[in-house]
Amino acid sequence: MLTLYYSPGSCALATHIALIDAGAPYTAVRVNFAEGEQRTPAYLAVNPKGRVPALKTEHGILTETPTLLAYIAQRFPAAQLAPIGDPFAFAQVQEFNNYLGSTAHVAHAHLRRGTRWVDADNTAALEAMTKYVPTSVTQIFELIDSKMLKGPWVLGDTYSICDPYLYTLSTWLEGDGVDLARIPRVRAHRERMAARTNVQQAQAEQSATAAA
Amino acid sequence: MLTLYYSPGSCALATHIALIDAGAPYTAVRVNFAEGEQRTPAYLAVNPKGRVPALKTEHGILTETPTLLAYIAQRFPAAQLAPIGDPFAFAQVQEFNNYLGSTAHVAHAHLRRGTRWVDADNTAALEAMTKYVPTSVTQIFELIDSKMLKGPWVLGDTYSICDPYLYTLSTWLEGDGVDLARIPRVRAHRERMAARTNVQQAQAEQSATAAA
Repeated sequence: MLTLYYSPGSCALATHIALIDAGAPYTAVRVNFAEGEQRTPAYLAVNPKGRVPALKTEHGILTETPTLLAYIAQRFPAAQLAPIGDPFAFAQVQEFNNYLGSTAHVAHAHLRRGTRWVDADNTAALEAMTKYVPTSVTQIFELIDSKMLKGPWVLGDTYSICDPYLYTLSTWLEGDGVDLARIPRVRAHRERMAARTNVQQAQAEQSATAAA
Repeated sequence: MLTLYYSPGSCALATHIALIDAGAPYTAVRVNFAEGEQRTPAYLAVNPKGRVPALKTEHGILTETPTLLAYIAQRFPAAQLAPIGDPFAFAQVQEFNNYLGSTAHVAHAHLRRGTRWVDADNTAALEAMTKYVPTSVTQIFELIDSKMLKGPWVLGDTYSICDPYLYTLSTWLEGDGVDLARIPRVRAHRERMAARTNVQQAQAEQSATAAA
């Protein structure tokens, strides 16, 4: 049994979808960010970084979305969520997910998490970061739209662990002030993902626990 | 034959060291950042992101440091640079490298690459970012020092693709304004790495081409 620690609306949704895609046995545990639960000793014992997602396995706890997605693909190979036996093809999957983690998600985080990178008292700098998010995130998603997303899925005809991650970040685009008309292929991918039963199930599970 | 595109002083050093560790046949090609070569059509054809590292293989080009390090480990398994056959142990490697890529490197990038996240005309916001780097990078490396680096190597007794990556970011610490006395285990790891012949070879190759 795996335990996913998540917060609704966070990037943990990608791992949640992948667990369902893999047919993995799991429990989802909400971390209440509104009440600062991610900074409690109990949660810091799970993840010293105070972030989600974290995935508890029978061997220990893992973090970082690209890591968790690759772990799920390797742990449940029958689901064929990544070309794990081919170093180059697997690297292409990792390349896409690493770009989302270290560039796309980071640009988005400047919207409301600017205190990671400037003093919390510096409201002018925080506002400058927030204001630039539409520009930076649009540039990044235009690159994804034009050069990376092969279609219909990220890798082309084969669905993979890249798809729930792109979808998750795509759900933030309106909040990031991105004009979706500029990234029609990403928008179509988002619609394709939103129609999947597994995606709807993950979102429903997160909504249910959030309301509880 | 593999071709590594790098800029001296960049995170491409990690991949360079790993190529030598793997005994891989490679050529290293310098991208002249001082002359803006990373934004030329010729280089954008290699890597549309305009960044280094990029690794040209016989199957195509790959980017993103954690991706390249894992690819080298999988492509040259005899070098035993990662526990590639064990999903959990491999995920621990990926978790460490993903943290360096998406958190540690990103915090450092706010020193001089702030225009990724605020308007280039906003000198006050750029200065605020630069000024906060000692705080953010110290916090991150204190977590690495206390919770992640097992010693003597990142994973413990076994050297892996985590080590050249941590070493590479560690060489930036003085420039980031971090007091190394606060992270003695990272400092010892850096000294251990600097004494390795393969590390010295990679640095000498980068210095030689930089001077050419």
